[in-house]
Amino acid sequence: MRRLMSAAVMAAFALPGVPAMADELRETALGLFATVPARVEQVRGAPVTAERVELGRKLFFEPRLSRSHVISCNTCHNLGTGGADNVPTSIGHGWQKGPRNSPTVYNAAFNVAQFWDGRAADLREQAKGPVQAGVEMNSTPERVVATLKSIPDYVAEFAGAFPGMADPVTFDNMALAIEAFETTLITPGARFDRFLGGDDAALDATERRGLQVFIDSGCAACHNGPNVGGQDYFPFGVVERPGAEVLPQGDKGRFAVTNTADDEYVFRAAPLRNVALTAPYFHSGQAWELEQAVAIMSTAQLGTEMTDEDVRAVTAFLHTLTGTPPVVTYPILPASTATTPRPE
Amino acid sequence: MRRLMSAAVMAAFALPGVPAMADELRETALGLFATVPARVEQVRGAPVTAERVELGRKLFFEPRLSRSHVISCNTCHNLGTGGADNVPTSIGHGWQKGPRNSPTVYNAAFNVAQFWDGRAADLREQAKGPVQAGVEMNSTPERVVATLKSIPDYVAEFAGAFPGMADPVTFDNMALAIEAFETTLITPGARFDRFLGGDDAALDATERRGLQVFIDSGCAACHNGPNVGGQDYFPFGVVERPGAEVLPQGDKGRFAVTNTADDEYVFRAAPLRNVALTAPYFHSGQAWELEQAVAIMSTAQLGTEMTDEDVRAVTAFLHTLTGTPPVVTYPILPASTATTPRPE
Repeated sequence: MRRLMSAAVMAAFALPGVPAMADELRETALGLFATVPARVEQVRGAPVTAERVELGRKLFFEPRLSRSHVISCNTCHNLGTGGADNVPTSIGHGWQKGPRNSPTVYNAAFNVAQFWDGRAADLREQAKGPVQAGVEMNSTPERVVATLKSIPDYVAEFAGAFPGMADPVTFDNMALAIEAFETTLITPGARFDRFLGGDDAALDATERRGLQVFIDSGCAACHNGPNVGGQDYFPFGVVERPGAEVLPQGDKGRFAVTNTADDEYVFRAAPLRNVALTAPYFHSGQAWELEQAVAIMSTAQLGTEMTDEDVRAVTAFLHTLTGTPPVVTYPILPASTATTPRPE
Repeated sequence: MRRLMSAAVMAAFALPGVPAMADELRETALGLFATVPARVEQVRGAPVTAERVELGRKLFFEPRLSRSHVISCNTCHNLGTGGADNVPTSIGHGWQKGPRNSPTVYNAAFNVAQFWDGRAADLREQAKGPVQAGVEMNSTPERVVATLKSIPDYVAEFAGAFPGMADPVTFDNMALAIEAFETTLITPGARFDRFLGGDDAALDATERRGLQVFIDSGCAACHNGPNVGGQDYFPFGVVERPGAEVLPQGDKGRFAVTNTADDEYVFRAAPLRNVALTAPYFHSGQAWELEQAVAIMSTAQLGTEMTDEDVRAVTAFLHTLTGTPPVVTYPILPASTATTPRPE
């Protein structure tokens, strides 16, 4: 069962409609959102060690995890372009198009669950999906393990990252290493976070007004928490269902996970951190401009036609969610050997 | 007209067949090869400035240079896997397979010309090819320029990299910036280079013997210079033409460039720096193991069946050509705008 509105959001709705002073706005915002931390030490009980992060960095960029030897995690979650591929739906094995828009990997560790429908509980489960999906990397756990075991440097790195295990090169450990690396893919220092931290000048008057509208008009009912979204599931079109180009009828969202009629066209609220970098928008990837996406949301979810001025202000606020990505060195991957499965 | 054998190589052939002492072997080798420099300051008259290298780094990883927004230079010249894609022939737009194996971008600045048939005089000319090739990135100069001009950060970076130009965002300048970055993709410090520099212990006895065989048996007649190849054009199958799986009849090599009968099945001698990292081998990408490639070469080019021991020794020597790649930070690319051409 999904929560439709948290107590904090209810409280926010009780605010007067006039623009709040910066302190008052900050106090309200702190009840709804949270800053992105500079570092994550563990993820769902698993330690984020330097060895796992280093191994995960290699695996994230490793095209040999795909059957073709051409597609890596970074192909669709490109760290240079907002952690996503910025096309409507991803292109995978054989140039097949995937069913949904690729979500950003940045700050994904802070989502309640992974994928648009939350079908993976965490990043370690998520990482196994695209590797096996026929329309994405089209490999198998057996093939991945055979590949990694055929490369002595990988065997040594797995042993170092998972000490004490008799057989550390496993599909599960591949996923744990990728998850560890992904927990370093966080973007602290957004102007919004500096505002939350007490810096009034971090947001200008329009951006502060956009934040106020974002809270008052109900956007924050779904888009809240550290990722300004990604915390819970909600129907797309709660008030008015968008057209089929934005909400294709064939994709019933979380219904495919829960088989509950209540979950038809239900999706995880999109996390809005770095949203200015990840057009096109929605699970269908059919809105190319952020203002357009805000306007569609206001009609579909809030049942209010936001004024153009409000749409512009909210969009200006959303641009303040762009943080500072980590510096990632492109990994030099160990060479294949005679026993490495060949690309197909 | 191609040279078939340099004076230095002729001299080398006059050496006795017995293994030389390290000093003697080094002296011979220094007459044939050269170490990879630690740094290149200019390339074919164009300065390699920090601004051009930085812009070129972004462009090298820029998927929006392709029509699909999915393929970048790094897709087929992957800096993590020896500067190539390690598949027989590259996969491009629409999952089309290209006609030839992707050559490594590492140390490409030292080749006499670019592509297997040398049809591009230098890297700045080469860089324009795959961007426009229908089976690769499938874009056009007009589309590339429109893309780059739609992104203010790129406009500013081009202005900084090409100061004093009224209209710096051009297809030619894109190529110059990529070339500048590529001149930093050099791999000094190979064990072979340390040997050339006077370190006897850098090569073991087998590797030194492999070098001696490489010189004495004639490999160095084509594979010489700083890149141990890449300096001139030679017929594939000068003594015995390999089978059609290795030398497909439809690809007549440099003949397509010169229209000279003499150039049928003529290719640029493969540069052998980092060759241990870039399987599969030959323009057709049909030899997966280095020993196999050495054996095919000995039959096709030298007309001698090398002994298994010699093949192993030459292969061991070729492994000493693996150098140290530069540390490359994965670039954060500027976001698209409303006027950026969309992926197709």
